[in-house]
Amino acid sequence: MTTRSVDFQHWVGGLQQRIEAQLQSLLPAPELAPQRLHQAMRYALLGGGKRVRPLLAFAAGELAQADSERVVIAASAVELIHAYSLVHDDLPCMDNDVLRRGKPTCHIEFDEATALLAGDALQSLAFQLLAEYRLADDATKQLEMVQLLAAASGSRGMAGGQAVDLAATGAPMTLPELEFMHIHKTGALIRAAVLLGARCGIELPPQQMEKLDHYAKCIGLAFQVVDDVLDAEASTATLGKTAGKDADRNKPTYVSVLGGNEARKFADELRHAALTALDGWGERASRLRELADFIVDREF
Amino acid sequence: MTTRSVDFQHWVGGLQQRIEAQLQSLLPAPELAPQRLHQAMRYALLGGGKRVRPLLAFAAGELAQADSERVVIAASAVELIHAYSLVHDDLPCMDNDVLRRGKPTCHIEFDEATALLAGDALQSLAFQLLAEYRLADDATKQLEMVQLLAAASGSRGMAGGQAVDLAATGAPMTLPELEFMHIHKTGALIRAAVLLGARCGIELPPQQMEKLDHYAKCIGLAFQVVDDVLDAEASTATLGKTAGKDADRNKPTYVSVLGGNEARKFADELRHAALTALDGWGERASRLRELADFIVDREF
Repeated sequence: MTTRSVDFQHWVGGLQQRIEAQLQSLLPAPELAPQRLHQAMRYALLGGGKRVRPLLAFAAGELAQADSERVVIAASAVELIHAYSLVHDDLPCMDNDVLRRGKPTCHIEFDEATALLAGDALQSLAFQLLAEYRLADDATKQLEMVQLLAAASGSRGMAGGQAVDLAATGAPMTLPELEFMHIHKTGALIRAAVLLGARCGIELPPQQMEKLDHYAKCIGLAFQVVDDVLDAEASTATLGKTAGKDADRNKPTYVSVLGGNEARKFADELRHAALTALDGWGERASRLRELADFIVDREF
Repeated sequence: MTTRSVDFQHWVGGLQQRIEAQLQSLLPAPELAPQRLHQAMRYALLGGGKRVRPLLAFAAGELAQADSERVVIAASAVELIHAYSLVHDDLPCMDNDVLRRGKPTCHIEFDEATALLAGDALQSLAFQLLAEYRLADDATKQLEMVQLLAAASGSRGMAGGQAVDLAATGAPMTLPELEFMHIHKTGALIRAAVLLGARCGIELPPQQMEKLDHYAKCIGLAFQVVDDVLDAEASTATLGKTAGKDADRNKPTYVSVLGGNEARKFADELRHAALTALDGWGERASRLRELADFIVDREF
């Protein structure tokens, strides 16, 4: 392991702890009524996950010299949306999954109705945070941040991607269709994490924001391509969630459409494109570069 | 029918049409991908409902001399939250209902997964609207409006009330417990409608806002008490949703706890308290007064 990667591991570990602590304190206490709902929200959100979206928000925040006290709120809001989407995605009427982050899914640990409401309330809380704390010097800019997260979450973003995913099971898909699905389902929220992190800081020139956006789009898609590869190749124990479920459900993935080798190659191309977008930004962008490797080279 | 009530009917009818048109244009077009999701969102939101929350927002907006172009956006955001909550509430894991506004519920007309996602996306869209349009001269105040709706929707508001409702089925309940449940489940969003409508206009003195808040709380609870009475007494055909389901499910209601006559009397007391809060406000508050009657005297 190089000094560089040790330093990166340290950065990741420190922020994962910080995010965990922040989410702990932002969530309603488990003894507050309605207790069961609050317990389910905490169960779904705390104690697990790589926190990739928050890490991306912090890395983009570094680029824009953002106050980390602001970034941690924006990052938490994105993670709340992510957590709600997992709870709903695991429900019987969707993926009907029983395992997530090595634990029973929320509706298994609690019940379906509580999981449904916990997801709903996590979404509300995300927008509450984004409006409650001061995240930008200019309140108008902060309203744009709320708008950005709402659009990324909604029917033309994440929820829309899930709807396409749902319709796709068992049906053949072309590469452009697959890309459309994943750009929405996973990419939209990853992109929001990067852009919101940057918006907590100084205003970047439009061309820089465009390049950062391109980085975010490439890395969002790469994340999903690697997810497809891992689902096909890794074990349930390694993933902490049910492996091989895409193939079981006859779901189109990058592996089923391109094959495993080509899918890996595609992820590498996307990493290259993401890194190229950061060209000439020096040290300020080093965390973003390291995260590109982290996302593409991960094994779970 | 008095001239006054004819005028009120006219006001209600005009605004119901305006809200319908606004929601039509705010929702993604049905031919936009993902089509099925957008169709489900439109199905859940359009073509029905008394639009009580939007009407309250408009009435409160009149009190604060608000620009109706602003109020209609705030009112739409509240109605989006209301519509999403109905879609999720009707799901098999919750109330398992097949009829709503005289039509098959969303998951019957489409499917459970689509209904789940449509509800999720309607919630996102509510916050998107509230952040996208200029609703207050001061963006900081608008952020407070986002926060207000998010809090009213979340685990300490509407979703929390639904969680208590869920836990209550089959269990005996005291009057304070019942009140806690309904203040959250129905009251929170009705209160948000009134306060958001007022916040679209001039800044009201704190004492006036407190009185308006008291009006909103009384009328929110009255709405639910009347709902309980109608569920027990009216027919499915009149209501456009399944009648008698509270008793069937052994659910505590104001009728089961107080009896029908006492429940009606309680609704009248709440109306009186709501009207008293508006004392001395003259013509500016007449729509709010009429709506108190509309809510308590309604037959569906």
